[in-house]
Amino acid sequence: MTAPHFTPLVDSLPSTVPFVGPETLERNRGRPFVARLGANESGFGPAPSVIAAMRDAAGDVWKYGDPENHDLKQALAAHLGVSPRNVAVGAGVDCLLGLIVRQYINPGDAVVNSLGGYPTFNYHVAGFGGRLVTVPYRDDRGDLGPLLDAVRREKAPLVYLANPDNPMGTWLDAGEIQSFIDALPETTMFILDEAYGETAPDSAIPPLDTGRPNVLRMRTFSKAYGLAGMRCGYAIGAPEQIAAFDKIRDHFGVSRMTQAAALAALADQAYLRQVVGEIGAARQRIEEIAAANGLQAIPSATNFVAIDCGRDGAFARRILDELIERDIFVRKPAAPVLDRCIRISVGPRSELDLFEERLPLALAAADKTS
Amino acid sequence: MTAPHFTPLVDSLPSTVPFVGPETLERNRGRPFVARLGANESGFGPAPSVIAAMRDAAGDVWKYGDPENHDLKQALAAHLGVSPRNVAVGAGVDCLLGLIVRQYINPGDAVVNSLGGYPTFNYHVAGFGGRLVTVPYRDDRGDLGPLLDAVRREKAPLVYLANPDNPMGTWLDAGEIQSFIDALPETTMFILDEAYGETAPDSAIPPLDTGRPNVLRMRTFSKAYGLAGMRCGYAIGAPEQIAAFDKIRDHFGVSRMTQAAALAALADQAYLRQVVGEIGAARQRIEEIAAANGLQAIPSATNFVAIDCGRDGAFARRILDELIERDIFVRKPAAPVLDRCIRISVGPRSELDLFEERLPLALAAADKTS
Repeated sequence: MTAPHFTPLVDSLPSTVPFVGPETLERNRGRPFVARLGANESGFGPAPSVIAAMRDAAGDVWKYGDPENHDLKQALAAHLGVSPRNVAVGAGVDCLLGLIVRQYINPGDAVVNSLGGYPTFNYHVAGFGGRLVTVPYRDDRGDLGPLLDAVRREKAPLVYLANPDNPMGTWLDAGEIQSFIDALPETTMFILDEAYGETAPDSAIPPLDTGRPNVLRMRTFSKAYGLAGMRCGYAIGAPEQIAAFDKIRDHFGVSRMTQAAALAALADQAYLRQVVGEIGAARQRIEEIAAANGLQAIPSATNFVAIDCGRDGAFARRILDELIERDIFVRKPAAPVLDRCIRISVGPRSELDLFEERLPLALAAADKTS
Repeated sequence: MTAPHFTPLVDSLPSTVPFVGPETLERNRGRPFVARLGANESGFGPAPSVIAAMRDAAGDVWKYGDPENHDLKQALAAHLGVSPRNVAVGAGVDCLLGLIVRQYINPGDAVVNSLGGYPTFNYHVAGFGGRLVTVPYRDDRGDLGPLLDAVRREKAPLVYLANPDNPMGTWLDAGEIQSFIDALPETTMFILDEAYGETAPDSAIPPLDTGRPNVLRMRTFSKAYGLAGMRCGYAIGAPEQIAAFDKIRDHFGVSRMTQAAALAALADQAYLRQVVGEIGAARQRIEEIAAANGLQAIPSATNFVAIDCGRDGAFARRILDELIERDIFVRKPAAPVLDRCIRISVGPRSELDLFEERLPLALAAADKTS
């Protein structure tokens, strides 16, 4: 039987799952992990006040959520010192990135990202027929000069940068970012992904400038707020660019429960401060564990630490495999140069204890097979 | 300052919210509704077992959900008697409809729907540059012959039908649907939206045939399962067509909490049976209220009842406005002929009591201003 035809673009795409989830690995291995330190989640969890708010909301979920995300937008705007017209809420930054690519990219248009930058963004670029142009990292950070050169050379309508960076955890200073913004062509939209903004030093975050139509700042409740499993992110930008999300978004996409959770999380800044402290301490602990094993942790402003394993990607891959074999879930960058690292997310003391215990064993085993 | 250019398609679209939520109306009115009977939600709520499962899951939402929705797909497949390869899970049917349009529609391609059929589907058609071709209802039901004619005439890659129907509540027999399927061009994808399948008579639901690549059956946890606010729908189809969702979907789009809720809901079929009974009784009650007011309820297989107000759309609109003025949230169809009706969702006794009390007042007021 003949089947309906996919569009040529969709026909050309692979069916894929960009990240293999720890659940899948656990199913394949037939046993659970004892430490979940691979997905840049916050093992410290959401605030008790947020858990309470979700429990309270559970009986109410027969109602559709507010398609305008009104209360959450108001609260975010007040928190950020901007107008609600500067805020678009979506079902996670992933979802919003897809909507942005869809808004600005015609098939064949160039999109600039760092080589090794966020794969889900690249997935959306491919999904809308964009032409990905990559620029290598320099000293484990996005390399702004060549990124700007690529934007100009390719007349790219979109350029993406995560600051702080994923997968390396590094950051650029606000001044460098601001100079990049000032130098960008006015017709190039800059996606500044600040998913890890809450765990970064203030000096990494340029002031918000919602008068500028070619910058969208991306933030999320998935990281420091501990709500990765609820899907809530937001974009901050100029009114016309923010209103454009209403042309194509799934209006009910942010669930009622998620709106309740995000509102409660935003209201509990005391918990956020506490958890940011715990994240900082956990980063330090991971650095110490690395050093005790003769490895070099790369300074991080995120909720994870990339550890330079000192040799090539194959060696780091063996360490990763040996950790997974020992029930420690971690991930690693895949791109050249970055791939010499493994990436350890923060987590509570008990999980880092297990990492500390098993890393030397994994290293020894990886050494033996090299 | 020049701004980044939207794609010509996005530039042509309006910024909109397809459904004005009751929350927005309440904000504008400055007071809450006393009966929420407008959005085809289930006022009977989710099962107590589902509420308990969500409360249990609340502490776990710092983890991303499983991007493969593995457990839920397994459970759905077992429940449906199909393979997991026949099931795609998404953040509500709305989200899946968008993905389907994106898979099959090139700009300018025809898409066939009934005139007055699901607006969110039409929103996605516009959003991907499809050309909407509509066919009037006949006797308040989708008119299969002309729908088929339109598909053939326009060489439409997509045709949509909700059975049971929204906004009219009517249904077609499985045999009619099956004949339509058998007559369709093999290259036309048929979206058979069975969001209200659980509240329909068995005789309205054709057997699943996952060998057929040009039918996608849409189901949801939003209606009978009482989880509209959690966003979980699924598509049932042939393996290649189901796998294609993995090319473009947001892999983490179905939140961890939502997966937990849907799994628990599916497991509690006793509650589903009970609530379907309550929905049936509430439909009957709404029919009686209509009749007591000299209005004709249209027989319904859904969780709502369309009431024919006996005159034109303007009259029905006045009744609607008078109900809203009296704090009863209801909606009405907007398309010609259908617009003579108001649409009342089922709800618990206390809310239908209020509807019963205030409908005569609304009718009298609407009469007076005509």
